[in-house]
Amino acid sequence: MQIHPSNSNQILPNSFISAALLIIGDEILSGRTEDKNLNFLAKSLNEIGINLKEVQIVGDVESQIIESLNNLRAKYNYVFTSGGIGPTHDDITSLSVSKAFNDVFEKNLEAEQILFNHYGKENVNEARLKMAFLPRKAKLLENSISSAPGFIVENVFVMAGVPKIFQAMFEAAKKHLISGNKTYSIEIKTFLTESAIAKEFANLQQKYPQIAMGSYPGIGQTSLVFRGINYEEIETVSKEMNNIILKIEVNKK
Amino acid sequence: MQIHPSNSNQILPNSFISAALLIIGDEILSGRTEDKNLNFLAKSLNEIGINLKEVQIVGDVESQIIESLNNLRAKYNYVFTSGGIGPTHDDITSLSVSKAFNDVFEKNLEAEQILFNHYGKENVNEARLKMAFLPRKAKLLENSISSAPGFIVENVFVMAGVPKIFQAMFEAAKKHLISGNKTYSIEIKTFLTESAIAKEFANLQQKYPQIAMGSYPGIGQTSLVFRGINYEEIETVSKEMNNIILKIEVNKK
Repeated sequence: MQIHPSNSNQILPNSFISAALLIIGDEILSGRTEDKNLNFLAKSLNEIGINLKEVQIVGDVESQIIESLNNLRAKYNYVFTSGGIGPTHDDITSLSVSKAFNDVFEKNLEAEQILFNHYGKENVNEARLKMAFLPRKAKLLENSISSAPGFIVENVFVMAGVPKIFQAMFEAAKKHLISGNKTYSIEIKTFLTESAIAKEFANLQQKYPQIAMGSYPGIGQTSLVFRGINYEEIETVSKEMNNIILKIEVNKK
Repeated sequence: MQIHPSNSNQILPNSFISAALLIIGDEILSGRTEDKNLNFLAKSLNEIGINLKEVQIVGDVESQIIESLNNLRAKYNYVFTSGGIGPTHDDITSLSVSKAFNDVFEKNLEAEQILFNHYGKENVNEARLKMAFLPRKAKLLENSISSAPGFIVENVFVMAGVPKIFQAMFEAAKKHLISGNKTYSIEIKTFLTESAIAKEFANLQQKYPQIAMGSYPGIGQTSLVFRGINYEEIETVSKEMNNIILKIEVNKK
């Protein structure tokens, strides 16, 4: 299923709206830069009931960007990209997106005007003007803090790599997104090891397959996370697990 | 090309050995946990001349793990996975890897013995014993700090999600990896904007296509990064760019 941003005032009956993130940039793969956008996007999408299902990270390589983008946009309701929309020769995201959609790559007059307004027309050299070249079908993703040309093509949101700008563009993107049901989570902790509660935890998962249950080892403790769209239900189930844990603790003494 | 770990004492003439990382875990996609393994692996591989070319992040979903793993292991010399090898029901990486290779999933006696030695035989319950079930073809990735069963199947290295254990397993993995030529990088900074140097920077890239050149905007400055396997060459080219920058700065005054 593809959801087009123009239908954004419609609330789908489907509780699970899916999304993917495509991070573009040699600097992430070489270790020079630590990505900060994944965690922000994961949390922000969760807030509005959209499930981030997959992330791909590729270098500044046109064929890789096109392949990943076409794969992800066919599989998920929304795809967000991060990086590669600046003025230098290694910024090839906009052109790659255009090719992925077999679209015409041309100067977007609205984007050009934003650059003129921001820098003054006399300061918009060839490199800056390059940022106004977008796929013909692109709709601009206007944002308050940057004249960088974030844009939307169908279900793909093309955004900057710099975290502050990525975040501002996501704020702008939100009004184009269809929200799903929010996923709530409850985390409980125990000093028991994962293996001491694994069997009962698996039984509980079988009893409530609609709730996603994960176990994460920490230093001297184990965290159990319950996730679902019905808060009361995950509250009930996490209490059930808490009682099981208490019994195991008592039996150990 | 697939490189098999057993040939690890052979240095290939190919300078570019490629790798991918597959991060497995709902906790990364929900935003609960920030991944720390990507940046560590990127830097560590770089040190030994292996290029990290792609990263995929998927949830605890068998079909997703199998699809991503089969895709990546066909495309790159090495694949590292992170996460999902613990004792609880949401730890499904080992079984998924086994299925991806159409291998028999069975108890590995060596892995069982490590668990017995670590915990004491009487403390290895069903959940802990689950960690000893591996693909038949698996070779153990022994490491100093954990009894968790990291393992190797062909060109795939299956490692833990907990950063400290991931790092220890990578140390163990290193002796099975064929090194390539190390990629060196030099970074220069300027107070000029990206757009002020974009044209000359692109010209330089055309002149030296064998060097990867990237531009990264920062607060009040621009970083230019030159990467290549010949240190003297990137030093020369970065100095050439430095001289160009000086001229542009002078012309601006």
